[in-house]
Amino acid sequence: MFAPIYLDWNASTPLDPEVLEAMLPWLGTRFGNASSRHEYGRQARAAVDDARGRVAAAVGAHPTEVIFTSGGSEANNLFIKGAAAAMKQGLIAISAIEHPCVREPARQLRRSGWVMREIAVDQEGRLQQADWRATLEARPSLVSVMLANNETGVMQDVATLAAQVRQGGAWMHSDAVQALGKVPIDFRTLGVNAITLSAHKIGGPVGAGALIVDKRVELAPLIAGGGQERGLRSGTENIAAIVGFGIACERAVIRQASEAERLSELRQNLEGRLLAEGACVFSARAERLPNTSFFAFEGIDGETLVGKLDRAGFACASGSACSSANPEPSHALLAMGVEPDFARGAVRVSFGRDTTAEQIEHFADVLVHTVAELKNLAAMAV
Amino acid sequence: MFAPIYLDWNASTPLDPEVLEAMLPWLGTRFGNASSRHEYGRQARAAVDDARGRVAAAVGAHPTEVIFTSGGSEANNLFIKGAAAAMKQGLIAISAIEHPCVREPARQLRRSGWVMREIAVDQEGRLQQADWRATLEARPSLVSVMLANNETGVMQDVATLAAQVRQGGAWMHSDAVQALGKVPIDFRTLGVNAITLSAHKIGGPVGAGALIVDKRVELAPLIAGGGQERGLRSGTENIAAIVGFGIACERAVIRQASEAERLSELRQNLEGRLLAEGACVFSARAERLPNTSFFAFEGIDGETLVGKLDRAGFACASGSACSSANPEPSHALLAMGVEPDFARGAVRVSFGRDTTAEQIEHFADVLVHTVAELKNLAAMAV
Repeated sequence: MFAPIYLDWNASTPLDPEVLEAMLPWLGTRFGNASSRHEYGRQARAAVDDARGRVAAAVGAHPTEVIFTSGGSEANNLFIKGAAAAMKQGLIAISAIEHPCVREPARQLRRSGWVMREIAVDQEGRLQQADWRATLEARPSLVSVMLANNETGVMQDVATLAAQVRQGGAWMHSDAVQALGKVPIDFRTLGVNAITLSAHKIGGPVGAGALIVDKRVELAPLIAGGGQERGLRSGTENIAAIVGFGIACERAVIRQASEAERLSELRQNLEGRLLAEGACVFSARAERLPNTSFFAFEGIDGETLVGKLDRAGFACASGSACSSANPEPSHALLAMGVEPDFARGAVRVSFGRDTTAEQIEHFADVLVHTVAELKNLAAMAV
Repeated sequence: MFAPIYLDWNASTPLDPEVLEAMLPWLGTRFGNASSRHEYGRQARAAVDDARGRVAAAVGAHPTEVIFTSGGSEANNLFIKGAAAAMKQGLIAISAIEHPCVREPARQLRRSGWVMREIAVDQEGRLQQADWRATLEARPSLVSVMLANNETGVMQDVATLAAQVRQGGAWMHSDAVQALGKVPIDFRTLGVNAITLSAHKIGGPVGAGALIVDKRVELAPLIAGGGQERGLRSGTENIAAIVGFGIACERAVIRQASEAERLSELRQNLEGRLLAEGACVFSARAERLPNTSFFAFEGIDGETLVGKLDRAGFACASGSACSSANPEPSHALLAMGVEPDFARGAVRVSFGRDTTAEQIEHFADVLVHTVAELKNLAAMAV
């Protein structure tokens, strides 16, 4: 079977073989409902408890602070709508480059009477200090700023932001889905009230995520019912996925430092080649995730380039995968002040544990060749 | 390994081997995000489309009417809160024996200004006609009545109810999680606006469910974000679980008629033994799911009996599995007018495709023996 080289690890990741191995018994003879009070149920309950400890340990949280969800989108919606439902209508402030699963629930709040503010970012994608100060002065009730952006990989100084938000008495959340496993995360050091995690971005399965939330935050459940997850997320626990999430967290944290070093070296090589060909690498002067490169070539359409690379055997993304059904240019790039036409040229390459130096070298060769070809076509068309 | 005999199929079911086989590639080399526009993404998208067709076919719906969710609890919450968010505050009417994942979101609506009404049931667990007529006269905006109850297995005549609800211009939903695969379901014949399905009750995986909803119903998404599932359920699609759900639906429908006959015969044998020992079988005079038996013996505690059966190698339930962290007697039995003390004696046995006549005979022997033992103990204690 033809297997394209996968360079889209920020969209999803293959299951770590050890994760799959840990999951399989729960897809086999251990099929009990964790709420059942017989042997099958007790096995399932113990597995959830074990995984809860692993996920908590990976981010320096207490196991009782872990609320398992079906994934990152649900966890972000749970925090934003769940916290809002438990307080008076007020101001919700989010960064202008949040993932749609933060932006859209915030917009839903706006339609129900909240005020919503998007905090401006500079041309590198970092929060603009002046707009951040103005946001604090507007006294938000809820603030959500992602730890690392899914497209540019740009990181925010969430610990500093959280300290300022706490002083104003608001709740602070951070979407850490893209940061997990790529940079160290410590829930206490961040000082936020909640972070969102997802399994399938770190070698775990789709179908498991978590909201890590300190117990001072009052939350209304998004999914109400049988009372699982301390009443904050009802529904039969997805044991196989939760078990896989636990193992994936543990392994991602163990290899984080060495992988970060290895992948940032691969990226440096790739970006050297890109810059030599005249590419613009977005957020290159900001602190970024080590595995992510987001770039564009003047006059070349990102969709076209990604399509040609796909046919040449390389899987990468134009814009963010989760919204690529949407032909609009990247929301994050527009927020960074990139011209829409240039933003339409954006291509995202993201690496993971199976990515090798040979793959990147091969990819750079093909990319350079393809870009030259498209430039020639464009020149001939003029 | 010691494997207790599993008699708790209404709580969860083992994966059908064919379902697991269909899922495994999606836990292996086919790991793409269905929103990605490269080969891995296209494979995933095609798999979701294929599964959507299978799920729709199983209940006589159109594929565009299928909204995949993480499970039944999410689908019930999506309908109740999603439909309510798109209309003016009014009256929501649910039966008095709904699963908590219908009752709790309805209670959340009540806290936000809706009026909530629980429709009374008779001593067999069927809707009381007088209270149903009074409910219609109160002009509800939303009605939810389950097709089959998870504890008693009692079925409601949802098609007739739906026709009456439609005349009043309200939206009608039915939780069909327990009915799927056990009785025939046809979305058009039911005439409701939406039904809820779940994979893990029919030999599919935990982590997949669906709201089947006709397009006239306006819904606000519970999980907003990247816009998956026509904007009604954002979040990276759980391909493996969705694929498994599709196959499980198909297989459940194929074997439904023959299994219903086989299982109701097993149940008849079991209940003959129970009645001979003086048990009360709940809802015995109503139309019930063929695989479910809910019963109690005067003076014997259900928890104690289930615990003894567990140690003897039989996995069955006291009260409903999903809420058995809750020591309260069954909500359904109380609604049927059963005395709380007697309701605390309730034991639920539910069968599935691996259940054999030998298992049931063996179970009946052990049950009769255990009941006699407990009765002797009780007599000695007096």
